[in-house]
Amino acid sequence: MQDVQAILFDTFGTVVDWRGSLIDEMTAFGTTRGIAADWAGLVDAWRAAYAPSMDRVRRGEVPWTILDDLHRASLERLVVEFGIAGLTDADLDTLNRGWHRLRPWPDAVPGLTRLKRRVLIAPLSNGNVALLVNMAKHAGLPWDMVCATELFGHYKPDPETYLGAARLLGLAPGAVMMAAAHNGDLHAARRCGLKTAFFPRPTEYGPHQVRDFASDSDWTVIAADIEDLATRMGA
Amino acid sequence: MQDVQAILFDTFGTVVDWRGSLIDEMTAFGTTRGIAADWAGLVDAWRAAYAPSMDRVRRGEVPWTILDDLHRASLERLVVEFGIAGLTDADLDTLNRGWHRLRPWPDAVPGLTRLKRRVLIAPLSNGNVALLVNMAKHAGLPWDMVCATELFGHYKPDPETYLGAARLLGLAPGAVMMAAAHNGDLHAARRCGLKTAFFPRPTEYGPHQVRDFASDSDWTVIAADIEDLATRMGA
Repeated sequence: MQDVQAILFDTFGTVVDWRGSLIDEMTAFGTTRGIAADWAGLVDAWRAAYAPSMDRVRRGEVPWTILDDLHRASLERLVVEFGIAGLTDADLDTLNRGWHRLRPWPDAVPGLTRLKRRVLIAPLSNGNVALLVNMAKHAGLPWDMVCATELFGHYKPDPETYLGAARLLGLAPGAVMMAAAHNGDLHAARRCGLKTAFFPRPTEYGPHQVRDFASDSDWTVIAADIEDLATRMGA
Repeated sequence: MQDVQAILFDTFGTVVDWRGSLIDEMTAFGTTRGIAADWAGLVDAWRAAYAPSMDRVRRGEVPWTILDDLHRASLERLVVEFGIAGLTDADLDTLNRGWHRLRPWPDAVPGLTRLKRRVLIAPLSNGNVALLVNMAKHAGLPWDMVCATELFGHYKPDPETYLGAARLLGLAPGAVMMAAAHNGDLHAARRCGLKTAFFPRPTEYGPHQVRDFASDSDWTVIAADIEDLATRMGA
């Protein structure tokens, strides 16, 4: 482990609880505005639109588009599907900015703070820079750098993202570790030569979670959460 | 000032004392290795090579090259000019990495820490990402994001750098302030619509300083140093 000089963190689900945060925020919005709706269902449908919207960019069907704009387009479609009427453009902006205000899992800030003493820490997330910088400010995430995939014009799991982050940090891929609660992210990172760390987030998708309850490979480190990862990294 | 949401800081000279740091580090290196040389003269000549080396990139005479590599090429030429023999490749790497270990001016960390509570703070520097991230780690600079001009494939004062940083942060240029101890940097930022903050660093170039002892225009804010800027920004 001595040769790991930086750890890149997947963010949505791995560091922050997007589902719980957005359900709380949108439910509160509905209550304040007197709009009854299946807000939890809307959040789950919004997240379900995430990978397909990025895949259209990854296949070159649409030009590079930042995640804030992909989220916004999905939201506009979903409020119609969910029968939610009367939202202004400013309302949609406010709801869309909920992704900038996600809550960290309880172990995230203490674990990252410990790791930061020993290695460089950065998100490597499909969130755009503004989203990730605002999230860090709101949640107190003590990143050394923000490696949004926006910086590479590619979404994960394209190899340009993992290799681009290592290059920016001036490190060989083998000196960089990708940490995620998603096995798929780690398979892609390992193919690029990065070290890997897995810890589960079994409640990420609430009752709809169907995968990533446990590691599915011999990752460099398998931990319980970010605090445990810090302990295993000697931090 | 209420509409300023982010402050970008020039770094070399503005936040860190490159000259004092490098002279100390190289002199100590020479003493340890028993190499007598005009180390201070070498540092001044190294910095004098900085703008011309970037200008060759800016004019398109050479392809995009990160500052670490420009510094390294200048250093290789200068050690010959200064009659310094017997340096290994590893020695040159060590000396070149001195730019990653520059000391902050005394007001920098306390001032940035105060400003960070009120606005986003980031360097906007011609240093590459690895240089700036390692510098921040070493000096304790509490950046929210690291906006190296490397991210835009352009060196300051090209407009792509100022506008690129505002775009990444999701802000209009008028919501972003450029802070620098160099009037030229601020003229370029203001042409792009950014707000501006000046404070002098009259000892940056030691006895060779010939400019930037004072503001030469009506910048948005003129301060004494970064702590005073924090006060003027209500932080």
